[in-house]
Amino acid sequence: MTEPQHGPSRLQEREIISRIRRQEQTGQDSLLAGIGDDCAVFRTGPNRLNLVTTDTLVQGVHFDLSWHPADKLGRKAAAVNISDIAAMGGIPRFALLSLALPADLPGRWLDDFLSGFLGLLAEYGVVLIGGDTVGSSQGIVLSVTVLGEAMEGAVLARSGARSGDLVMVSGFLGEAAAGLDLCRLGLEEEGGWQPLVRAHLDPVPQVALGRDLAEGGLVHAMMDLSDGLATDLAHICAESRVGAVVEAAALPLSPLLRAAAPVCGHSALDWALSGGEDYQLLFTAAPENVAELQRRTREKNGRELYVVGRIVAGGGVLLEEGGTVREISYRGYEHFRNNG
Amino acid sequence: MTEPQHGPSRLQEREIISRIRRQEQTGQDSLLAGIGDDCAVFRTGPNRLNLVTTDTLVQGVHFDLSWHPADKLGRKAAAVNISDIAAMGGIPRFALLSLALPADLPGRWLDDFLSGFLGLLAEYGVVLIGGDTVGSSQGIVLSVTVLGEAMEGAVLARSGARSGDLVMVSGFLGEAAAGLDLCRLGLEEEGGWQPLVRAHLDPVPQVALGRDLAEGGLVHAMMDLSDGLATDLAHICAESRVGAVVEAAALPLSPLLRAAAPVCGHSALDWALSGGEDYQLLFTAAPENVAELQRRTREKNGRELYVVGRIVAGGGVLLEEGGTVREISYRGYEHFRNNG
Repeated sequence: MTEPQHGPSRLQEREIISRIRRQEQTGQDSLLAGIGDDCAVFRTGPNRLNLVTTDTLVQGVHFDLSWHPADKLGRKAAAVNISDIAAMGGIPRFALLSLALPADLPGRWLDDFLSGFLGLLAEYGVVLIGGDTVGSSQGIVLSVTVLGEAMEGAVLARSGARSGDLVMVSGFLGEAAAGLDLCRLGLEEEGGWQPLVRAHLDPVPQVALGRDLAEGGLVHAMMDLSDGLATDLAHICAESRVGAVVEAAALPLSPLLRAAAPVCGHSALDWALSGGEDYQLLFTAAPENVAELQRRTREKNGRELYVVGRIVAGGGVLLEEGGTVREISYRGYEHFRNNG
Repeated sequence: MTEPQHGPSRLQEREIISRIRRQEQTGQDSLLAGIGDDCAVFRTGPNRLNLVTTDTLVQGVHFDLSWHPADKLGRKAAAVNISDIAAMGGIPRFALLSLALPADLPGRWLDDFLSGFLGLLAEYGVVLIGGDTVGSSQGIVLSVTVLGEAMEGAVLARSGARSGDLVMVSGFLGEAAAGLDLCRLGLEEEGGWQPLVRAHLDPVPQVALGRDLAEGGLVHAMMDLSDGLATDLAHICAESRVGAVVEAAALPLSPLLRAAAPVCGHSALDWALSGGEDYQLLFTAAPENVAELQRRTREKNGRELYVVGRIVAGGGVLLEEGGTVREISYRGYEHFRNNG
């Protein structure tokens, strides 16, 4: 998530996860992947896998009602979870929605939220099957769980990257972070910035592409870009026990993003590396298969895939920019916090 | 949940649920039960069903840190979800935990919480497989999802009650509500009240009993008692399109509960009907099978089952008390709110 103002930092979150992993019980034979990937994966029958993921959005941390319309927020709460299913190549099926709502929330807001939430689910063939509605003494807290399925052998984890792979992304980077900054400046209504604003308010999970990449057999590791390239690629490196080098010049930055940077007083490169919430797919493949992947994706999905770096031995994520190299692992909002 | 001070009322929650149900998409063939029961149920293979449930606990609404130790709260966050799996006769398997945490929360608190949470999961053979950790600008919000499984034909829904059935519960009622009131009075450390205080702080999900009742084939409808008998039995009546009559004199009230009532200035009967959070099982069965159910449960589970009323034609829940009859459907915390 982009720039929470409160709560545990990314560093703390990683400590929490590793603490949980240490305490974690083992022994469920049907469990194929637990904590540490986009989804947990467990077997439900011969050749059939279930995927499950959960994400929580907190008012004042992950969304701001002053510019986030209720229906768009509903769509986003569904989309960010469906994106986790897409990130492993799964097919989303069912959703659960937990709402913690203040007593003074207008009924109209809830109607619009549900309409957006259920509308996005319907676009992806997902059915809402349960949830919980509780009071909140403070702001709105939205917790969504999505279940999906996949066939064995067609699930992509974060842990499969190999030294020598190229690192690829499925679209422009930094758009959502730029959109958020435009909203903060009160520019969310200006027509020209709509693609960026929409990327923040109403992100699109890459379900069909994720499934094609997983079933095609040419991709080694995959996840979705929720926390920014610097953090998310560091997750792939940690899970795969490899390092990565990102080339600044290769990052796909849209002309609109470059135009927004001086307006917001921000760097387009920073948005792309640390902004988060793009919900594009991040994945690795052997160099000899990249052209084939790009061709297939152009033909089948009408989409461009971009090579942004390479996997190397070692650990951590480095950025090559104009002849210099610097460490950028996990440079998410902590970076922003330190630098204003 | 017992007496939230904020947020949507039970009435509002029912409106939300019915609004979602109206909007709900249909068409997933594998979905056997969606919104409106303790768990959603979907088929994952021939004869194999998955169960999934989610519950959210909000600081200041569902728990009070001034008397709820972190490890006990961790246990309870797991238990209330496992109880929903038990309520349908399922076997709990996997859990997801979403934590929204204020920045100033001590690390020690989180350690204790996780230790309690994972400890209770381990007691029931459940593995934590995923989750999310986010910042909260205000209090703690805990969202837990639990997945379970069951064989086809051994799942009990709320919708199977039949006119003529007897209504049964698996243990004392009102204990948790009394325990909460004792905590509010600062009496949580007094040794004599511990069974009541423990019922509030550290409830026990009835997994083995739930499974035995589901597999035994003699129970028609079942759920767990989370909102109190008046509300939960009204849910069974609504889903089964029947009514129910509860006999006040038949309610299993412990001697300790009766002793606590004058101390707290509360009525033991009110605790039992409207208190909630007992996490006992509530179920119905044909009168001719009740003795057999009680015998089996005594032998196999070492537990007593209590008949508290009967299912009748019509709708709603009536209370028979000393020759008078009054309507008590959904008399949960709204009742408390109106009466101080």
